[in-house]
Amino acid sequence: MRVTVAMIAQLVQGDIEGDPQVEIQGPAPIEAGTPGTISFLADVKYEAFAYQTGSSALLVDRTFSPQQPIKATLIRVDNVRMAVAALLKQFDQSKTGTGTISKQAFVDPSAVIGANVSIGHFSVIDNGAEIGEGTIIHDQVTIGPGARIGKNSVLFPGVRVYKNCQIGDDCMIHSNAVIGSDGFGFAPKADGSYDKVPQLGNVILGNHVEIGANCVIDRATMGSTVIEDGAKLDNLIQIAHNVRIGAHTVIAAQAGIAGSTHIGSHCQIGGQVGIVGHIQIAEGTKIQAQSGVAGAIVEKDQAVYGSPAIPYGNYVRSYAVFKNLPEMEKRLRKLEKEVKEKRS
Amino acid sequence: MRVTVAMIAQLVQGDIEGDPQVEIQGPAPIEAGTPGTISFLADVKYEAFAYQTGSSALLVDRTFSPQQPIKATLIRVDNVRMAVAALLKQFDQSKTGTGTISKQAFVDPSAVIGANVSIGHFSVIDNGAEIGEGTIIHDQVTIGPGARIGKNSVLFPGVRVYKNCQIGDDCMIHSNAVIGSDGFGFAPKADGSYDKVPQLGNVILGNHVEIGANCVIDRATMGSTVIEDGAKLDNLIQIAHNVRIGAHTVIAAQAGIAGSTHIGSHCQIGGQVGIVGHIQIAEGTKIQAQSGVAGAIVEKDQAVYGSPAIPYGNYVRSYAVFKNLPEMEKRLRKLEKEVKEKRS
Amino acid sequence: MRVTVAMIAQLVQGDIEGDPQVEIQGPAPIEAGTPGTISFLADVKYEAFAYQTGSSALLVDRTFSPQQPIKATLIRVDNVRMAVAALLKQFDQSKTGTGTISKQAFVDPSAVIGANVSIGHFSVIDNGAEIGEGTIIHDQVTIGPGARIGKNSVLFPGVRVYKNCQIGDDCMIHSNAVIGSDGFGFAPKADGSYDKVPQLGNVILGNHVEIGANCVIDRATMGSTVIEDGAKLDNLIQIAHNVRIGAHTVIAAQAGIAGSTHIGSHCQIGGQVGIVGHIQIAEGTKIQAQSGVAGAIVEKDQAVYGSPAIPYGNYVRSYAVFKNLPEMEKRLRKLEKEVKEKRS
Repeated sequence: MRVTVAMIAQLVQGDIEGDPQVEIQGPAPIEAGTPGTISFLADVKYEAFAYQTGSSALLVDRTFSPQQPIKATLIRVDNVRMAVAALLKQFDQSKTGTGTISKQAFVDPSAVIGANVSIGHFSVIDNGAEIGEGTIIHDQVTIGPGARIGKNSVLFPGVRVYKNCQIGDDCMIHSNAVIGSDGFGFAPKADGSYDKVPQLGNVILGNHVEIGANCVIDRATMGSTVIEDGAKLDNLIQIAHNVRIGAHTVIAAQAGIAGSTHIGSHCQIGGQVGIVGHIQIAEGTKIQAQSGVAGAIVEKDQAVYGSPAIPYGNYVRSYAVFKNLPEMEKRLRKLEKEVKEKRS
Repeated sequence: MRVTVAMIAQLVQGDIEGDPQVEIQGPAPIEAGTPGTISFLADVKYEAFAYQTGSSALLVDRTFSPQQPIKATLIRVDNVRMAVAALLKQFDQSKTGTGTISKQAFVDPSAVIGANVSIGHFSVIDNGAEIGEGTIIHDQVTIGPGARIGKNSVLFPGVRVYKNCQIGDDCMIHSNAVIGSDGFGFAPKADGSYDKVPQLGNVILGNHVEIGANCVIDRATMGSTVIEDGAKLDNLIQIAHNVRIGAHTVIAAQAGIAGSTHIGSHCQIGGQVGIVGHIQIAEGTKIQAQSGVAGAIVEKDQAVYGSPAIPYGNYVRSYAVFKNLPEMEKRLRKLEKEVKEKRS
Repeated sequence: MRVTVAMIAQLVQGDIEGDPQVEIQGPAPIEAGTPGTISFLADVKYEAFAYQTGSSALLVDRTFSPQQPIKATLIRVDNVRMAVAALLKQFDQSKTGTGTISKQAFVDPSAVIGANVSIGHFSVIDNGAEIGEGTIIHDQVTIGPGARIGKNSVLFPGVRVYKNCQIGDDCMIHSNAVIGSDGFGFAPKADGSYDKVPQLGNVILGNHVEIGANCVIDRATMGSTVIEDGAKLDNLIQIAHNVRIGAHTVIAAQAGIAGSTHIGSHCQIGGQVGIVGHIQIAEGTKIQAQSGVAGAIVEKDQAVYGSPAIPYGNYVRSYAVFKNLPEMEKRLRKLEKEVKEKRS
């Protein structure tokens, strides 16, 4: 479909200054805009780019008054950031499937495939699996026996869903993420070796969950590892067996959560955070990147930092002193000397 | 096969209180039990669940005396945890293969495939590779040229085994783990760029090794990167070139071990631990999660903590003071003032 | 091809002591050498191995004078390490493709495939994708719609390249790495849930870039996430959306770089390092393993350490005091007591 500046202006309820018939292929950052793209100016500190950009159109604030001539057609809006969000959605094709099943996929005859499902090349839908209406299974994905995928979800190439796991509606799972691998459970034997504890549970993902590339979510020993509705996981995250992640909690890349820990809803967990097993984290907790949480967090909406983690402000203040520890040690030594001299 | 309470009682040498003919589909956590499942009560603090559970059967201690009526059939045993372990094994199907080779797999004519091997759809067994008797290669796995996999091992979907790597008997490798990628070796050139050092060695895994999902074990520059018998690796772990991991060492998720380091046997390495290259770690070493080990550990059975890591107790004591550093700095300042005032 | 000691001696400009006609299959570490292999002695502390090695040939320094008889044929060279590098290249086959396209691959008719390209089994080359001359696409790789791969690059099994991403010439990407997954962008809504911000940009890799196994490089929201020429990334690394990595920067395993951060050229980033978003890191910066960089680094060629990171030497000195904090606290307490006693 041909998209013009006029159509975009209508979408974002903006007013046009310039040629409304310019055709737009997609958005671009203002400093890298080329003809056929639309950019935006949301922050005055980037104003200089507005005069140099090669973009054909520019979303700007209604109050913006240019100090130099601008070649691009302007679209004036009330809120630039909201207009950009609407624009990005307009050009988004991440949920565009073929609606067909590749002849080079393996779909077990016992699998139940909903209407308008896309299944890519060399994907495997194993016996008893169910794929809900409108879901897009990209190439080379594995859906294990008895696994259930909801409606309008997207699984990118190389995603592995082990047997009996369940994924909700409107989820997005990025490439090479693994859902349902065995929990890490071993019983020590008298001779110092280990006996594997079979992992018979599954993983359940709610609706509107996003899982980043190369994440791993282990199945429960018994019962379920659960990621509740609307939780968003960045890449390379480890979720151990029997963990529960509350609704609308966001977790940044490379964080890891040990077994049986329950995280409340609306938490924000920073990158490379580690959380020990068998604890509860209250809803609304904010954990600073690289922190290590070693015990339960009972009070809601706290921010913590450090390894082991302590209240955020305390860590910052302690670390400020830490940076001057050699100096502080010298002051102590000097004082010791003074006191000693006085004594003698 | 139909499994009844009577059969389970016999398996765990337990005594039945209730209907021995109830059919059991599998185990479930006591708080989430449904009809047809069996649960257990190993810790009195969960006793309340015993009176509410929907499970059809319950493993309890011989000495357990209920304070309220329990609907579930009880199986009384000497050691609940051991009975649960036996029960989980009974229902475990992770080593159940088809014993067939998918017509949609690629198996090079020169590959040697043992008896009763399962090979899934879209898997590749390259030239000269060998797969031992009873091994299960799931879907979309890659076994590179000349690679050798032992007997009764299980490789889950998306595992990549590069050329000439060797995997022992009774191993389990979870999805998307990579065995034998190039070690990270580059020689700096005069112009500031880097020259790749070819990585010609391989990876050797002993017997009874478990490798978690999305782990990476790099091949040696020359010789072998070695994971000895019975070692267990959780998910997302990095093992660099020429590393050696001792027998029955367990490593938690997201730990990383740099090149040429040798870890002794029976070590316990916590999650997100980092260990520098070219050092030795004595057997029985315990490394606390998120620690960074920067030098050799010579003495056996030590516990270390911190980044860089120091003896465990020392870190804990130093961190206890760290948390009060601002307070300590104030005390020092006050003392300086007092001494100064006295002087004047 | 038969390779003899004589041929190797010519390659490395060495002088032979012993049988020049011995056939060599490949290199091996001196302590693990077997007949048919060639080893090297670059460091006198390993001299004892020279008298025991089973290798057929040994690269040694011109000045080396053995204290015991050596069975292996010696090749004397000016610089052992450089000779080893030349030798490794001689035996390297990592860039040896079949030059053919598997009949079990899916190549869209609209894809443009250069001369002498290898495409492995069950790989997918999607519509509009381009693969440059001499590039090797191993088995089970995904090249998304409109993606462009340069010349003489190697993509190992399971690599995923999302749509419209670009990879340069002479790149190497290891198994299960993901190039172009969605950046982690979500806008909070009034009800506490999140709205996905579509990620419409791409990833651009320069020439001579190496990406380790299971790395993830997210696509930009708009514009491009860029890895410049000659950058080398180890395994399991996270590169967020709109990041730029400068030329010839090396990054060790499990490091993570948050969104929109720009790293200069010739930096060295240690393992498990975390870097916050939206900052600039000057060229030549060295970041110690496990550090957390929380702010811009403006001055070139600095070394930093700690979480949050401070100048390297400062961290080392502060940590030295940290290790003795309990002792220091005791000294302070003692002094307080003394001063108090004097006062009274």
